[in-house]
Amino acid sequence: MGVPPELPVLLVLDLVGTFAFALNGALTAIRTVDVDLVGVLTLGIITAVGGGIVRDVLLGALPPATFVDWRYLAVAAGGALLAFLFSPQLRRLRISIHLLDAAGLSLFAVTGTGKALELGMGPAQAILLGALTGVGGGTVCDVLIRRVPDVLRTGLYAIPALVAAALVVVASRTGVDELLGAPAALSAAAVCFAIRMVGLRFRLNAPRPRGVPRRPPGQNP
Amino acid sequence: MGVPPELPVLLVLDLVGTFAFALNGALTAIRTVDVDLVGVLTLGIITAVGGGIVRDVLLGALPPATFVDWRYLAVAAGGALLAFLFSPQLRRLRISIHLLDAAGLSLFAVTGTGKALELGMGPAQAILLGALTGVGGGTVCDVLIRRVPDVLRTGLYAIPALVAAALVVVASRTGVDELLGAPAALSAAAVCFAIRMVGLRFRLNAPRPRGVPRRPPGQNP
Amino acid sequence: MGVPPELPVLLVLDLVGTFAFALNGALTAIRTVDVDLVGVLTLGIITAVGGGIVRDVLLGALPPATFVDWRYLAVAAGGALLAFLFSPQLRRLRISIHLLDAAGLSLFAVTGTGKALELGMGPAQAILLGALTGVGGGTVCDVLIRRVPDVLRTGLYAIPALVAAALVVVASRTGVDELLGAPAALSAAAVCFAIRMVGLRFRLNAPRPRGVPRRPPGQNP
Repeated sequence: MGVPPELPVLLVLDLVGTFAFALNGALTAIRTVDVDLVGVLTLGIITAVGGGIVRDVLLGALPPATFVDWRYLAVAAGGALLAFLFSPQLRRLRISIHLLDAAGLSLFAVTGTGKALELGMGPAQAILLGALTGVGGGTVCDVLIRRVPDVLRTGLYAIPALVAAALVVVASRTGVDELLGAPAALSAAAVCFAIRMVGLRFRLNAPRPRGVPRRPPGQNP
Repeated sequence: MGVPPELPVLLVLDLVGTFAFALNGALTAIRTVDVDLVGVLTLGIITAVGGGIVRDVLLGALPPATFVDWRYLAVAAGGALLAFLFSPQLRRLRISIHLLDAAGLSLFAVTGTGKALELGMGPAQAILLGALTGVGGGTVCDVLIRRVPDVLRTGLYAIPALVAAALVVVASRTGVDELLGAPAALSAAAVCFAIRMVGLRFRLNAPRPRGVPRRPPGQNP
Repeated sequence: MGVPPELPVLLVLDLVGTFAFALNGALTAIRTVDVDLVGVLTLGIITAVGGGIVRDVLLGALPPATFVDWRYLAVAAGGALLAFLFSPQLRRLRISIHLLDAAGLSLFAVTGTGKALELGMGPAQAILLGALTGVGGGTVCDVLIRRVPDVLRTGLYAIPALVAAALVVVASRTGVDELLGAPAALSAAAVCFAIRMVGLRFRLNAPRPRGVPRRPPGQNP
């Protein structure tokens, strides 16, 4: 379980994130390549549960929680199926989907970091695993449909996840999380969500290497 | 072991599937990209044993059976080497290779589902893992040679594997597999094989998302 | 730990290899695609520790040593950050980087084989895992930036790693490694390094499939 049973709020939010990731991954796949029903479902589900799977492989917590827990698979399959059936209509809701996706990123980063700390990882590893839980599924999906993952290139996507993960580690080290519980976790997620939204609104980017001319997108191999 | 020792028939067929997958993966690699001996052997072996490895990672059954058991590696390396040495001649046998590949898909789906059930997976997870055992190796190979995996796009490939896997789960739940043993497993594999062959013969495809124009193949990024 | 604590020489050399791989992976990413700071760090770290992670997944030795040991992560992040800051200057040092990269390949192949033997793998599996430790990280990096991995196509890269891994297995079976310890391991690494350097100098390649016309590089899909 990525989420302890005493925190149903976080579980519900984790499933909301799963749904949003599945929807977003499936719509991206439909927009980018010729995929059939199998492809849409596969890519939606991988986007939704792939980050948690990569995290659990690196934690040695196998079989992975998001694979064994049927609720994650069912919610992910539902999101992907919705995208398959209503992709033209859903495309008009792009902003809402960005919101849902940012919510998923934020919650996955927080719950992923929490799980890594529970299993005894050090702070750096916990932060990396939290961010990886947030960005991993989309990255695997991008590789399967032959895109260079956006998270490596543009926008603020990994950085808000890393900030939220770092906040969870600090809260855990200082004992704040025991005092506050779910509110501490939700505050860290809210910070991630806010940075992601500000980054999208103002088209902020992480720094780029110096002395390297920016290629037009079509020239990426 | 992907196959219990009391079923040498299934082991032999599993190795036939391994050989067919290695041959097919290596020939696909030779046809698609400039690869040298190392590439042909690597891609053939990955196609043959990759599905079983992905399955065993998700099952937490590590080290993976198809990697530890030298017979799988040896048969896979043999198939890939044959493709390296005789690719021009083998290309004329395309239909026989389709037959062997469908046999591999069918047997891997059945043995993969069986192993997942043995290790206590639920029915949905067992069906997914069975299909993944069949399609996983080819998918990893496609990613390495930069093709969008066919299984996501066209033809009936995952669907017959899912049907066979579902039959194995039903047989296990109803106790039919204990009555019939290997014949029950082979019947499920035969159904997969038949659907795959009918799909190839009549060029059947899974449904595609509505309202999305079909791109010409060259336009896939 | 990929390296037993009584061998600080090998640990130091393993970290040198990690640094070289991170530098090389990050520079390759900068040269090949538009990546930002997140992308450069991610791709550098993956190139450096990815081979060890794939090895440990296949060994079932999770969590992976190169991920849990902060020294590998820190050295890898340092190498990638250096590449981010000074890529124009570093490009002029290409030969030195080739040297460092070959050192990393040699040491990873030797330490990877040693770990596989310690954990009870058979000779063929140990040789494959040793080579995979050397070439795995760069391959994952290539997949993320959408290149067909060089190791599958051109030059002598996997072959020297396989030779060194085979020497480690022979030394272990004949007891030479107990007599000589670190010197035996370093000799195997030196053989890998020498073959790699000779291959680079004289542009040697592994054999290619017969009857297949060589495509110009741009035609690789």
